[in-house]
Amino acid sequence: MADTLQRIVLLGAGNAGSHLAKAIVSSGHELVQVFSRTIDHAKALAEKYKAGFTKDLSNLADADLYIFCIKDDALAELVSMVKLEGKKIVHTSGALPMDALSNVSQYYGVFYPLQTFTGGLDVDWKRIPICIEASDTKMLAGLKYLAAAISDSVLETSFEDRQKMHVAAVFVNNFTNYLLQNAEEIMKQTSLPFSILQPLAEETIRKAFLLGPADAQTGPAIRGDEKTIAAHEELLSSDPEIREIYRALTEAIKKSQK
Amino acid sequence: MADTLQRIVLLGAGNAGSHLAKAIVSSGHELVQVFSRTIDHAKALAEKYKAGFTKDLSNLADADLYIFCIKDDALAELVSMVKLEGKKIVHTSGALPMDALSNVSQYYGVFYPLQTFTGGLDVDWKRIPICIEASDTKMLAGLKYLAAAISDSVLETSFEDRQKMHVAAVFVNNFTNYLLQNAEEIMKQTSLPFSILQPLAEETIRKAFLLGPADAQTGPAIRGDEKTIAAHEELLSSDPEIREIYRALTEAIKKSQK
Repeated sequence: MADTLQRIVLLGAGNAGSHLAKAIVSSGHELVQVFSRTIDHAKALAEKYKAGFTKDLSNLADADLYIFCIKDDALAELVSMVKLEGKKIVHTSGALPMDALSNVSQYYGVFYPLQTFTGGLDVDWKRIPICIEASDTKMLAGLKYLAAAISDSVLETSFEDRQKMHVAAVFVNNFTNYLLQNAEEIMKQTSLPFSILQPLAEETIRKAFLLGPADAQTGPAIRGDEKTIAAHEELLSSDPEIREIYRALTEAIKKSQK
Repeated sequence: MADTLQRIVLLGAGNAGSHLAKAIVSSGHELVQVFSRTIDHAKALAEKYKAGFTKDLSNLADADLYIFCIKDDALAELVSMVKLEGKKIVHTSGALPMDALSNVSQYYGVFYPLQTFTGGLDVDWKRIPICIEASDTKMLAGLKYLAAAISDSVLETSFEDRQKMHVAAVFVNNFTNYLLQNAEEIMKQTSLPFSILQPLAEETIRKAFLLGPADAQTGPAIRGDEKTIAAHEELLSSDPEIREIYRALTEAIKKSQK
C-alpha cells in the first residue's frame, strides 16, 4: 500500500510555493507548516491556510512529507543545513537530480510541476503535468497518490527525461516570451497597442498543438519569400539586435524544411 | 454617410478566404460570388453559402465590394488581369501597400485580419483585429462599418504601422511556432508526449500579455544561471541546430537585461 502523505511541510514561500500551498490544501491535504528564511513570507503564506510557520530549520514540524520548493541555486545551501532522517522529502526542480536531497534523508524524490507560476495569477492545477520520481517504490506510490489528487496529468519521469523536458520548457516559456518581448518592441514603433497580438499568439499555440508545429508553419521563411524577408529586415534596420534574431530564426526555419 | 458594402465578391478560396466567407455571411452580409482559379475550390466554398462561383475574371458578378484574399506573391499577377473600374476593391495582405490594387480601380483599400487561419479550425472573429485603410474617406467609413460587424477590434492602420505589425506577427506566430517545433524535437528524445507542454505554452502567452513580456521573463538566461545553461547545451549536443538556437536566444536574453 502507498504511504499516505497527508501532512505536509512546505519549505519555500515564493511564487511556486504559494501556488503549491493552495493546491495542497485544495486537494484535501494538510499544510502543517511553511518555512522561509524571510519570516514575513512564511507567515503571510501560512496564515492563509492556518498553518504554522518558521524561519528556523531546527524548528521544522513533524510531517509525512517535506517539499523543498526553493530556487535551484539556493537548494544546495539549504540542503547542507538540514537533516530529516527517516522523513520523506522531495524537491520541485526540473533541472536537479533527486539525489540532490540524498544527504538530508534516505527517502527522497521529485515533485516537479511543469508550469510557470506568477503571484496573484491562478492556474488550473488539474491540467498541470506533475513529474514524480522517488528513491523507492513505496514513496513513489505515495507521491503518485498526492499528485493525482492535485492534477489529472501525473507522469513518472526519469531524470534524463525530466532534464530534456526542462530544456523543451525553456523553448516554450522563456524563449517564446522573449519573442513576444521583441514583438512588443516593434509595436512600440507604431501607434498600435501590443495587446492586439494576443489572439494571434493564442491561436498560434492552439494550432501548433493541434496540427503539430511542423505542419502548422506558415510565413515568409517557410515560403522562401525573399522579397518579404528583405522588406522585414529593412524595417528592422534601426534595431540591429532584433534584426539578428529575425535573421537567425528565418535561416533556421528555411533549413528545417530541407 | 458611409457607403454600404452589403454585397460582396470574394476572390480567393483558400484558408483565409474560407474563414472570411463565413465571417461575411455570419455578420449579415451577402456573399454574391466566389472566384478561384481552381473551379472546384470556388464551387465548394460558394455552395456552403448559396453564392455563385467562377474561375473566369471576365465573369465577375456585380457587387458593392470585391475582396482579394490571395497570397501576396500571386496578387500582382491576378491584379494585372482584371479591371473593376468604379468598383470598390480591397486586399487582405499584411505586407502589401493598398496601391498594389490601384490599376484595378480608383477605389481601393486594405482589409487585413491579424490572425492565422487553418482549414476546419473555427476562430472567434469578434476578437480578431481587422486593420483597414482606404483610398478615400467614404470608402474607409464603409470598410469600418463592415469590419465592425465582424469584429470588436477595428483599427485604421497606416501602411507603415501595418508593415511593422506584420513583422511583429512573424515573431508571434512563425517564430514562436518554430520554437515549439524545436521543443517537439527535444521531447521526441524522451518517453513523454509533446502535448504535456501545452498548458505551459498557454500560460506563457497569458502571462506575457498580462504582465508584459519583460516583466514575465524567468529561466536560466535572465538569471544568468551558467550552470543550468551549460547543462542544457550539453543535453542538446546531439542536435547542433537546436543548440545554436538555444545559444542565440540565451545570449539575446542576457543582453536584453543590461
